[in-house]
Amino acid sequence: MAVDPRFFASTGQQTLADILLAAGGQSAGDPARRFTGVASLQAAGPDEVSFLDNRKYLPALAATKAGAVVLAPALAGQVPEGTVAIVAVTPYLAFARVATLFHPAPAPVPGVHPTAVVAGDAVVGEGCEIGPCAVIGAGARIGRGCIIGAHAVVGPGVELGDGCRLHPQCSISHAVAGRGVVLHPGARIGQEGFGFAPTPEGGFETMPQLGRVLLGDFCEIGANSCVDRGSQGDTVIGPGSRLDNLVQVGHNVRTGRGCIIVGLAGISGSTVLGDYVQVAAQAGIAGHLEIGSGARIGGQAGVMNDVPAKTDVIGSPAWPVREFWRAIARLRKMGAAPGSKDEGKAG
Amino acid sequence: MAVDPRFFASTGQQTLADILLAAGGQSAGDPARRFTGVASLQAAGPDEVSFLDNRKYLPALAATKAGAVVLAPALAGQVPEGTVAIVAVTPYLAFARVATLFHPAPAPVPGVHPTAVVAGDAVVGEGCEIGPCAVIGAGARIGRGCIIGAHAVVGPGVELGDGCRLHPQCSISHAVAGRGVVLHPGARIGQEGFGFAPTPEGGFETMPQLGRVLLGDFCEIGANSCVDRGSQGDTVIGPGSRLDNLVQVGHNVRTGRGCIIVGLAGISGSTVLGDYVQVAAQAGIAGHLEIGSGARIGGQAGVMNDVPAKTDVIGSPAWPVREFWRAIARLRKMGAAPGSKDEGKAG
Amino acid sequence: MAVDPRFFASTGQQTLADILLAAGGQSAGDPARRFTGVASLQAAGPDEVSFLDNRKYLPALAATKAGAVVLAPALAGQVPEGTVAIVAVTPYLAFARVATLFHPAPAPVPGVHPTAVVAGDAVVGEGCEIGPCAVIGAGARIGRGCIIGAHAVVGPGVELGDGCRLHPQCSISHAVAGRGVVLHPGARIGQEGFGFAPTPEGGFETMPQLGRVLLGDFCEIGANSCVDRGSQGDTVIGPGSRLDNLVQVGHNVRTGRGCIIVGLAGISGSTVLGDYVQVAAQAGIAGHLEIGSGARIGGQAGVMNDVPAKTDVIGSPAWPVREFWRAIARLRKMGAAPGSKDEGKAG
Repeated sequence: MAVDPRFFASTGQQTLADILLAAGGQSAGDPARRFTGVASLQAAGPDEVSFLDNRKYLPALAATKAGAVVLAPALAGQVPEGTVAIVAVTPYLAFARVATLFHPAPAPVPGVHPTAVVAGDAVVGEGCEIGPCAVIGAGARIGRGCIIGAHAVVGPGVELGDGCRLHPQCSISHAVAGRGVVLHPGARIGQEGFGFAPTPEGGFETMPQLGRVLLGDFCEIGANSCVDRGSQGDTVIGPGSRLDNLVQVGHNVRTGRGCIIVGLAGISGSTVLGDYVQVAAQAGIAGHLEIGSGARIGGQAGVMNDVPAKTDVIGSPAWPVREFWRAIARLRKMGAAPGSKDEGKAG
Repeated sequence: MAVDPRFFASTGQQTLADILLAAGGQSAGDPARRFTGVASLQAAGPDEVSFLDNRKYLPALAATKAGAVVLAPALAGQVPEGTVAIVAVTPYLAFARVATLFHPAPAPVPGVHPTAVVAGDAVVGEGCEIGPCAVIGAGARIGRGCIIGAHAVVGPGVELGDGCRLHPQCSISHAVAGRGVVLHPGARIGQEGFGFAPTPEGGFETMPQLGRVLLGDFCEIGANSCVDRGSQGDTVIGPGSRLDNLVQVGHNVRTGRGCIIVGLAGISGSTVLGDYVQVAAQAGIAGHLEIGSGARIGGQAGVMNDVPAKTDVIGSPAWPVREFWRAIARLRKMGAAPGSKDEGKAG
Repeated sequence: MAVDPRFFASTGQQTLADILLAAGGQSAGDPARRFTGVASLQAAGPDEVSFLDNRKYLPALAATKAGAVVLAPALAGQVPEGTVAIVAVTPYLAFARVATLFHPAPAPVPGVHPTAVVAGDAVVGEGCEIGPCAVIGAGARIGRGCIIGAHAVVGPGVELGDGCRLHPQCSISHAVAGRGVVLHPGARIGQEGFGFAPTPEGGFETMPQLGRVLLGDFCEIGANSCVDRGSQGDTVIGPGSRLDNLVQVGHNVRTGRGCIIVGLAGISGSTVLGDYVQVAAQAGIAGHLEIGSGARIGGQAGVMNDVPAKTDVIGSPAWPVREFWRAIARLRKMGAAPGSKDEGKAG
């Protein structure tokens, strides 16, 4: 059994015909053949569907007991006897859709839990599920078919589009979110940014943070990640962008469409990311910079200058990937033991 | 309209006279002229006040439609016709005060929400607002005029001074906080630090963490940041210090007055920071070190030794800023393409 | 007074005989002598027990007023007059046990707080304490003697062994935990990992994350740390492993027994750690790697390749510790001021 039924509901058996429809794939198998679920190449049995997306796992393909495998056309011939090949141009996407066919995201169970605290003038759309102890503030507007998880706190005036999912214990204030936005547990949206002025007496006074957070359609914010509201104007996360866990986004940052920001990365205030920028884990980007569309920031990079579109940088401070690796190679020679064959080559 | 009224209350129109009083500034404008709010140079209209703190934005000043602009005396002459100059020696601070005049931080709405859980022997000062599902433990003492946000958890025995603000879903235990302390959403104060002893059998046993956290007057802890309590003795955050989001402070760390610790930085156990130390984003400081007053730790720096007062360090491992940049410049030459004019210069 | 009684209950006076029994130590002192608690060398008075584990603090030992000091046999002779030496082979562990004798972790106060929300079909073991506003989902099974803190959220179907402690505001879903597991405040266990497939239209579709998190006996997860559930198969934290605060563990990561992962470190998806691996603060490990048992990853290291067992690495990208330091030494010469005696030595 690949999936623990305590945690994941199943739609039950699916025919190969329906699976092909979901996958957008093709197969020579019997369209009426039934499958019960999905699993990895190693774990799948003859009633389950698996997938291959990486040639590194070809040995696992050869040994699989899976009833069917989703994979690219070029690899279809390598499926072992008894296993049905499901061919798709984008096998990872195709498999995601097959897995969703068996295990769709849970639909909202409409209703307001008796322990939830919903302000009298808040507007909650049709078909929403409001969980235990959830708090929805005055004047908030929640779209249709949203799930507001246990202990989620939606501040006064916040607006959420249709089909949003707020997982337990996240908080959102001073924000307007589009459709299908997902906040994972403990995500923090819209709190006051880090802005203050030193006083002559040696203290600090808070600069009022008078902007908002705008979350584009279908963007997702990971567990315990933080997106501060704008100080003046708005902090913007573009449509479809995805933030992993423990990411920090400062005030007035703006990302374009489809940006990916991986765990423990941080973007300082007022920096602007174009579309489809990728920021790898633990990278940091200083404030007031422009990162062009399609740029990729390497893991643990420290970006202190603008990055042109479609440029890959890495290192702290960050520089172009190719030069970084050349310098690292030379540095490594400098680290070789005295007298070794690599010693002294740096000079 | 610069500020979304769903999220920010306004005190309404203010005269230039009142604005000058708040700003501690001077102006040749009509003291009776009325303004409606604040906005950026780009967004402000003739009824709004803006500010300029950075010569980089002089073109925006030239083009602004703002009714008034707060700025330094030397720049007063560059304000366009129709715009009133408000001159202040510290324009950023002056503008913070003007913005606060229009949009002060919300005052507590006194009362205890019916879903809050307040221990019978807890003492809650006059004028406090205790939000939905907030929990205040046995023997806790909350000062006057505090806001305890939705779902905030104040542990048994915790003491908070007057005017503290605990935002939603933060937790504080084993701690004594001064006046005006702010905890942002999800901040974690006073939990057990990371201390344990290996056993001969290959396990670990927890070292009881028997200290506290002391939060000085007016210090602020960012969203999802963590300050562990002392193992023996106390972890101390000095008065007026400000921690950004996702900062980690280990047990028995002590910071002086007015320290600034930026997002995703971490301070390991028992390290001591003097006054006005600045720790930039994603920097790390090892344990049992002394960082002198006024030292500045650069972004992503990895500090493994004491840092003298008023010293700037950067790099991982950290070293003085000037030397770091010289070495980086040489390293970059080492990364230049073979045959390029920079090649080989490192030797 | 070394320990604040508002925050820590005490078992009262203990005799030296009982202290020796707890410590597994030996002493020439009067077995009937009574002590009242523990404190640091600096703070302890004649009725208190302290310890020394680091020769760096020998001056503090010489000056201590402590009634007794736990320390290694070789140092027993250096205890000042009037202070009793308690000799133990592993003094840090011995002292942890003495401190626990005076201040054991609070036992659960059995009962379910009236504001807790416990599903009708959840099974809660004998002697559990369920705190204010805690939520326990349908079909969850909680072992005996657990503490489920205020606002903790235990998802549907989750299984916890005996003696677990969930501190306030943590969340756990899609997970099975062993005995004695500790989740610190704000820890996030079992949420959806970061997995999605790009679509031809430029969007992303979520790859259903159909695995679980398995937490081994006695493992501990720090405040605001995140452990994502597996995408297929499980994410596993081995028995006795300890994660500090703000740690990120991606889907399908597997750690062995007794691993230590320090604050702000991140482990990317599908990476496997052997037993007793140590990952220092702010280190990052890329995905799909193998880190051998006993390996130690230095602070801020960026691991991009497998690490053999019992190997120490550091740097970003990470390399063996000895070579790293040699290269750093040469790099530092490159950073020396022109004309200084270090200048030019790199070549």
